[in-house]
Amino acid sequence: MYSEIKNRNLSLLTDLYELMMMQGYFNNDFFKDKYAVFDIFYRKNPYGNGFSVFSGLTEIVDYIDNLKFTNNDIDYLNSLKIFTDDFLSYLKDFKWTGSIYAFDEGSLINKKEPIIKIEAKIIEAQLIEGAILSIFNHQTLIATKAYRVCKAAGENSVMEFGLRRAHSIDSSIYGAKASVISGCVGTSNVLAAKMFDIIPMGTQAHSWIMSFDTEYDAFLSFAKMYPDMCILLVDTYDTLKSGVKNAIKTFEYMRDNNIKSKKYGIRIDSGDLAYLSKEARKMLDDAGFKDAIICASNDLDENIIMSLKIQGAKIDLYGVGTKMITGDPICSLGGVYKLSALYDKNSYKSKIKISENSEKITNPGNKEVYRIYNSDSMLVADLLTLEDENISNENDLELFDPIDVWKKTFLKKNTFTIKKMLNPVILNGKNIYNYPSIKEIQTNLNNDVMTFREDYLRLINPKEYHVDLSKKLYDLKNELLKKYSEDKFNE
Amino acid sequence: MYSEIKNRNLSLLTDLYELMMMQGYFNNDFFKDKYAVFDIFYRKNPYGNGFSVFSGLTEIVDYIDNLKFTNNDIDYLNSLKIFTDDFLSYLKDFKWTGSIYAFDEGSLINKKEPIIKIEAKIIEAQLIEGAILSIFNHQTLIATKAYRVCKAAGENSVMEFGLRRAHSIDSSIYGAKASVISGCVGTSNVLAAKMFDIIPMGTQAHSWIMSFDTEYDAFLSFAKMYPDMCILLVDTYDTLKSGVKNAIKTFEYMRDNNIKSKKYGIRIDSGDLAYLSKEARKMLDDAGFKDAIICASNDLDENIIMSLKIQGAKIDLYGVGTKMITGDPICSLGGVYKLSALYDKNSYKSKIKISENSEKITNPGNKEVYRIYNSDSMLVADLLTLEDENISNENDLELFDPIDVWKKTFLKKNTFTIKKMLNPVILNGKNIYNYPSIKEIQTNLNNDVMTFREDYLRLINPKEYHVDLSKKLYDLKNELLKKYSEDKFNE
Repeated sequence: MYSEIKNRNLSLLTDLYELMMMQGYFNNDFFKDKYAVFDIFYRKNPYGNGFSVFSGLTEIVDYIDNLKFTNNDIDYLNSLKIFTDDFLSYLKDFKWTGSIYAFDEGSLINKKEPIIKIEAKIIEAQLIEGAILSIFNHQTLIATKAYRVCKAAGENSVMEFGLRRAHSIDSSIYGAKASVISGCVGTSNVLAAKMFDIIPMGTQAHSWIMSFDTEYDAFLSFAKMYPDMCILLVDTYDTLKSGVKNAIKTFEYMRDNNIKSKKYGIRIDSGDLAYLSKEARKMLDDAGFKDAIICASNDLDENIIMSLKIQGAKIDLYGVGTKMITGDPICSLGGVYKLSALYDKNSYKSKIKISENSEKITNPGNKEVYRIYNSDSMLVADLLTLEDENISNENDLELFDPIDVWKKTFLKKNTFTIKKMLNPVILNGKNIYNYPSIKEIQTNLNNDVMTFREDYLRLINPKEYHVDLSKKLYDLKNELLKKYSEDKFNE
Repeated sequence: MYSEIKNRNLSLLTDLYELMMMQGYFNNDFFKDKYAVFDIFYRKNPYGNGFSVFSGLTEIVDYIDNLKFTNNDIDYLNSLKIFTDDFLSYLKDFKWTGSIYAFDEGSLINKKEPIIKIEAKIIEAQLIEGAILSIFNHQTLIATKAYRVCKAAGENSVMEFGLRRAHSIDSSIYGAKASVISGCVGTSNVLAAKMFDIIPMGTQAHSWIMSFDTEYDAFLSFAKMYPDMCILLVDTYDTLKSGVKNAIKTFEYMRDNNIKSKKYGIRIDSGDLAYLSKEARKMLDDAGFKDAIICASNDLDENIIMSLKIQGAKIDLYGVGTKMITGDPICSLGGVYKLSALYDKNSYKSKIKISENSEKITNPGNKEVYRIYNSDSMLVADLLTLEDENISNENDLELFDPIDVWKKTFLKKNTFTIKKMLNPVILNGKNIYNYPSIKEIQTNLNNDVMTFREDYLRLINPKEYHVDLSKKLYDLKNELLKKYSEDKFNE
């Protein structure tokens, strides 16, 4: 996969405080060989969805793989008069030597589980927080939105049409990628199509119609040139009275002149899509064009598509722009980057972030995530454990809810299977990532979907699958919370 | 200003249909030397604001200035089997030779007026729609949001803290730029700070505090290293019982050891900011640290800041992240790119886009925008005219509302002044843009703000200033609408 991120110098794409803290770690012997474990996770599935769709790993790996401070970067940092010469020398020779473990891109994921785990010298781990989160939060939000849009469209296809409304260039490119991962059949964005080997798709703009003297002239000219992708935009003047009529006239011309077409039809981009599509369908059918497809666009999202379906709209293909490429109405996934352990060869400390809001208390320690399937290969739950636990289906397994601990699930040995979800993509600074194609990422997603019961997958009030803690992790968390409250009491 | 966009090959950052239409124009003699005029405008001010803040012109100019199809691009397009060899040869030698006119970056702008006008061969004008709109829509949305956040903060400063929640890399960089244009005093994003000569700002993360054995150790270590930017994050464990107490202990250490500080204080990143800031203020004051500043962050926006102020929160400095960098709760400005005229040396046609919704009918013709000020240099209205009209303050001027035409304003000659708002930045393919610094763009904004009455500027239920049409433009619009409805009648 072509990664444009490799061509960019993004080493300074970090929050100033990361560099300030790095200098702090650099100057303090206590942290000299201290390794940190950071988890990336989020606290709430967007849109009321039962899960999210993980996207962005490829770009995260490329960003880390490419970290290098240029002389120009160092000069800039020096000009800020915050950093010592020693620290700047360190940055000049900076190499990222840590490890990254992550879910496969395209996985279905849940809140409160580490999707990406960073294990690195604390000074190195701190640098990458902002850029990684920005990539993760963006792509995962859009992939989740696109999953919903495509799910609502059902057997009908969805095209990604959002370039002009994306939050600048990367947002359009990586948003298109995320949308296609989750099921869109193509994108209008040619650069994204090229980069990710996606099918570029398009019809025509109102300006094309308006630049001709008549609508029919515009249609005919287009049809002759692109008979195999002849989707005519019918709403420039009046959809039914003018647009569909002229489209039919064009299709009749093609038929009469033996111009064959692999794909032809109309696009409606405004007005009452339910009513207009049904009327247009009748007109096309009556004229003998039963295989003409009807494409609809105009501020669509999963809710409008569901409503159109309920109304019996006759739409074969959806073009979805603004609301998918921006993730509307949710502006951010809200993923965070939290310290869970700090260690060196002499000591090991699990770390927990306390909060008044118990939902915000983090899970401590260097963790693994296992996905548990029943004997029908259907998802049972995800299980967080400490790294050194040995989880296997050769023993019985007891799962319990970390809040309502009396809610338990017993799994008899050999009646379930286990999959380790966090796989190394960068190991001790070495990029060992096996770059997947978009098709492979789509396959990851589809394979996951196959293991999710429909009540997890549905769009409205889905069941959220469990993310459980192992007994050992649960005990560690409670021990740290107890210690914290005792410390407070003794103050 | 350093523009990273110049380093990227973005020629394919366009919708496929633009290239398909371009080939259509290329193959049709009628369009051989046809020039088009396109307007970029939007239909609604976001957030209920009375105007928007224009941002993005610099990147738009750089994008156009850099348009060039590489051999690799041509090979890719060829692989799609949509384009002829002749057309691909044309693209290979493609140069953008048109003209761009625009409001100054940082201007206050209104709906339904052309903010950017593109005058170019129609084949060239079509290519750039998507990329320009993406840049315009993104930056103008964020600049408008940031204007509101900074206005709510009033005399207090706002720092841009959004990197980790931005919609990928560009969104973080150009969102930071847009935020600073509208009044933020700095950004946490070091790359954006470097690119745009903005002050980078930062405090410390929870991970810094958590990586030390005690909160006090973390504070003290930071204070010794950064006495002049010593803002201590106090909410890792318990804001009042632990954080503020340890901060005071740290400040006492600094005082006792004669460590001078230009700027010191605390940051509260969770909990009830109104209550906690007032309590923290008391504690700091009682300990003799009346000049310690209190910084607040945590999902802030203009509404929460207004609410905090009403509650008498003691906050000196705001760090604003997610909701400003994403434009929450509005996901897109919705700017569009509409054909308004088509001409060659033999003919001239003004173009209008019809819609059932009269709000969506466009203003036809090659237009100018004039801003009218009264004798006190305060804004009266913007006036759209046709390009060949001669508007001057040497004659009386009658303005009228284009919907309620009986609503009129008479301006006696020499009692008002006029400013032409659309200035050339690219002329016949030549980049003549006088790249402004961020400070100059801020000055543009501040100068505009000085001419707007407070009822236009207020955040809630502002008055929207008028965008009027000249009599000639109004007549042209009605003539085209009349012709359109007669054509429909005669069908």
